[in-house]
Amino acid sequence: MSGSVDFEAMLAVAIEEAREGISEGGIPIGAALFDMEGKVLGRGHNRRVQEGDPSVHGETDAFRKAGRQRSYRDKIMVTTLAPCWYCSGLVRQFNIGTVVVGESVTFQGGIEWLRGLGVKVVDLNSKECITMLTEFIESYPAVWNEDIGEE
Amino acid sequence: MSGSVDFEAMLAVAIEEAREGISEGGIPIGAALFDMEGKVLGRGHNRRVQEGDPSVHGETDAFRKAGRQRSYRDKIMVTTLAPCWYCSGLVRQFNIGTVVVGESVTFQGGIEWLRGLGVKVVDLNSKECITMLTEFIESYPAVWNEDIGEE
Repeated sequence: MSGSVDFEAMLAVAIEEAREGISEGGIPIGAALFDMEGKVLGRGHNRRVQEGDPSVHGETDAFRKAGRQRSYRDKIMVTTLAPCWYCSGLVRQFNIGTVVVGESVTFQGGIEWLRGLGVKVVDLNSKECITMLTEFIESYPAVWNEDIGEE
Repeated sequence: MSGSVDFEAMLAVAIEEAREGISEGGIPIGAALFDMEGKVLGRGHNRRVQEGDPSVHGETDAFRKAGRQRSYRDKIMVTTLAPCWYCSGLVRQFNIGTVVVGESVTFQGGIEWLRGLGVKVVDLNSKECITMLTEFIESYPAVWNEDIGEE
């Protein structure tokens, strides 16, 4: 599979989404859902701050925008940050076959759980993703804590 | 807590939502988020069929409509059906303290997982909920299977 798809190029799409989030005053987390040929089916970013909607995480936004799919086993969810439990639950429920994360240093979410369930998890350990989110958290800690349900 | 709140009355709100779903041609699963005084913060229902959006489950719809909340520990998610993994992940991530399900016969989702994590799960074993969903699944098995990510 890694011969036919370029995970770094996919991550670039998710990063673009994350940067759009920053430009809107939101949290920089972006995601995109791809098929095995590397075609984007849906892309999105966290818009809780922008829309007052805590249900819009990067992954759920990308998933929503991809519309109804017959199967997710052959789909790839690419996200700038390891998926939280909410988004990991999404991956499990819909049997998304592959998850590519930009990083899992800032936040680990459910990636070990997903690995244990047989999901292929690829961690690109992207310096760009780590820096982007770390700088945001340092500037807006309260916004970040609300996003992950911390009080 | 059960002295001050009436779980059956809360479930009636979720059932109303589920019935609205049927009337729209959709899947009969409804949910509502309440505070400890029994006030509805948000209510919704599965609208995948209606809107072509697989991300709108009853619980995520109710959660979205409740808007941003400071904390979810003192909130009660009431749903006609045991939450799937996606919605169970939502409960875990946002630390929703109590989950009330109409039934877990048709589908168990993540309720045991949530119990193990310390979430208070109340199962009302509602005949009305079981009948409502069972009849739907018998009539539209393909729609149901798509909803829970089965191929």
